[in-house]
Amino acid sequence: RPFTLRPIRVTMSHNQSYWTSINGEIEAHLKQAIPLRPPLEVFEPMSHLVLSAPETTAPALCVAACELVGGHRDQSIATASALHLMYTASFVHEQLPLTDRPRPKSRPTIHHAYSPNIELLIPDAMVPFGFELLAKADDPTQTNSDRILRVMLEIARAMGSQGMVEGQYHELESSSQWDNAWIEHVCKKKDGGLHACAATCGAILGGGGEEEIEKLRRFGLYVGMIRGMSHGIGKKEKGLVRVVEELRNLALQELEEFEGGKLEAISSFVNA
Amino acid sequence: RPFTLRPIRVTMSHNQSYWTSINGEIEAHLKQAIPLRPPLEVFEPMSHLVLSAPETTAPALCVAACELVGGHRDQSIATASALHLMYTASFVHEQLPLTDRPRPKSRPTIHHAYSPNIELLIPDAMVPFGFELLAKADDPTQTNSDRILRVMLEIARAMGSQGMVEGQYHELESSSQWDNAWIEHVCKKKDGGLHACAATCGAILGGGGEEEIEKLRRFGLYVGMIRGMSHGIGKKEKGLVRVVEELRNLALQELEEFEGGKLEAISSFVNA
Repeated sequence: RPFTLRPIRVTMSHNQSYWTSINGEIEAHLKQAIPLRPPLEVFEPMSHLVLSAPETTAPALCVAACELVGGHRDQSIATASALHLMYTASFVHEQLPLTDRPRPKSRPTIHHAYSPNIELLIPDAMVPFGFELLAKADDPTQTNSDRILRVMLEIARAMGSQGMVEGQYHELESSSQWDNAWIEHVCKKKDGGLHACAATCGAILGGGGEEEIEKLRRFGLYVGMIRGMSHGIGKKEKGLVRVVEELRNLALQELEEFEGGKLEAISSFVNA
Repeated sequence: RPFTLRPIRVTMSHNQSYWTSINGEIEAHLKQAIPLRPPLEVFEPMSHLVLSAPETTAPALCVAACELVGGHRDQSIATASALHLMYTASFVHEQLPLTDRPRPKSRPTIHHAYSPNIELLIPDAMVPFGFELLAKADDPTQTNSDRILRVMLEIARAMGSQGMVEGQYHELESSSQWDNAWIEHVCKKKDGGLHACAATCGAILGGGGEEEIEKLRRFGLYVGMIRGMSHGIGKKEKGLVRVVEELRNLALQELEEFEGGKLEAISSFVNA
């Protein structure tokens, strides 16, 4: 059957109110989850760093995927918040001034609000805190602990040695090899892996079938790679324009068999 | 009723074969769990750092607590391995050379086998990998996912803002205030919290009752504080000898109502 891009080729701005409402709920959840309690010296910087981290679309994608498969937003907000914590922790550690490494290519020089020691320690607290949010999301009145455990496994893998850390390793340790294939690899491991994980988790939590979960995993991968290539490490590489266009088509193909009111919104991610 | 210390006041060395066998199983599990697969640049240092980290007794305590409440060793080996990963990650980050902080008092100057960048990144991969081991420990033939989720919550809290990271914060940021009360606080948050968590997790996994779990949590706290004061930050403080003696008594009191063949072995922790 014909594959028609146009009907769902909409921009993020057409769906702005959808993204604004999701991001608002995630931020509210994070603010409530990180209370300003003792030790204030730890929680105050955590709160500041989490709320001032550069935007990533992965948490919102998690919620959108949950809603696309018919789940309720509440089922995914804690996981989306945990994803934001994990992403922030990675970002802050990437920015840590260490004498032996170059500044990552994909990131601006940021203002360091805290000392290096604090910027080392606080992300070390954010990651377990993210897992705490996930573990607490288990609703004892339902039997969803298997879904939660599965989501934890997805997030652990996406953030670990074969995901984010591998991407960071390549970005930071082999920056002399920059070419388009290398940029694609880093984008696949970092933004790609994070978005693939986010969409997968949302689909799991929303009760999607296995096929839906795998479609959304691939959709997330492509969308994350597009973001990395458009806004991150690859943003000044003209040679990637064609790659991005191919990824957009691949991403939209994964959505072909979905339907419902949320389809247009999640489709707009390909232009994010 | 009279509280008799002597019968169970035995040294670790009397139970050496018990600890050797537990630690051997944990090491074997870790070696198998961290295969030398790509990216080798990430997995090789992870393997090296995990297997060369200074000894901590927390993982063995987890297994001993599991066996004390009647559980089987296999139920706790993955969690004990995850605890070793978490501890190693904390240790490596503590040793990271940052210009703005003093060397932690409790630690020797270590040989840095890798560059600072690698010693920052690899622990960032170890922590999610620890959670991955936990999530995979869920046995689909049994319904133990609630126990696993509870253990994850315990570990997330012990490693986070009100546990290990709070202890590290105080150790590294307020080292001008060293007095015995301050040392006690750091020992409580770091070794105390880690051992309390380990014993709690072992008791949960072994199927202990709520009262047993809480007794073993306190036992672990006291035992960890003893270790911190005897071998760690407090080891040269003569004024802590009495505190340690009190903690030994408190720890042994928590074991009073336990029985069985493993009681002697776990009791020997107070002299570890």
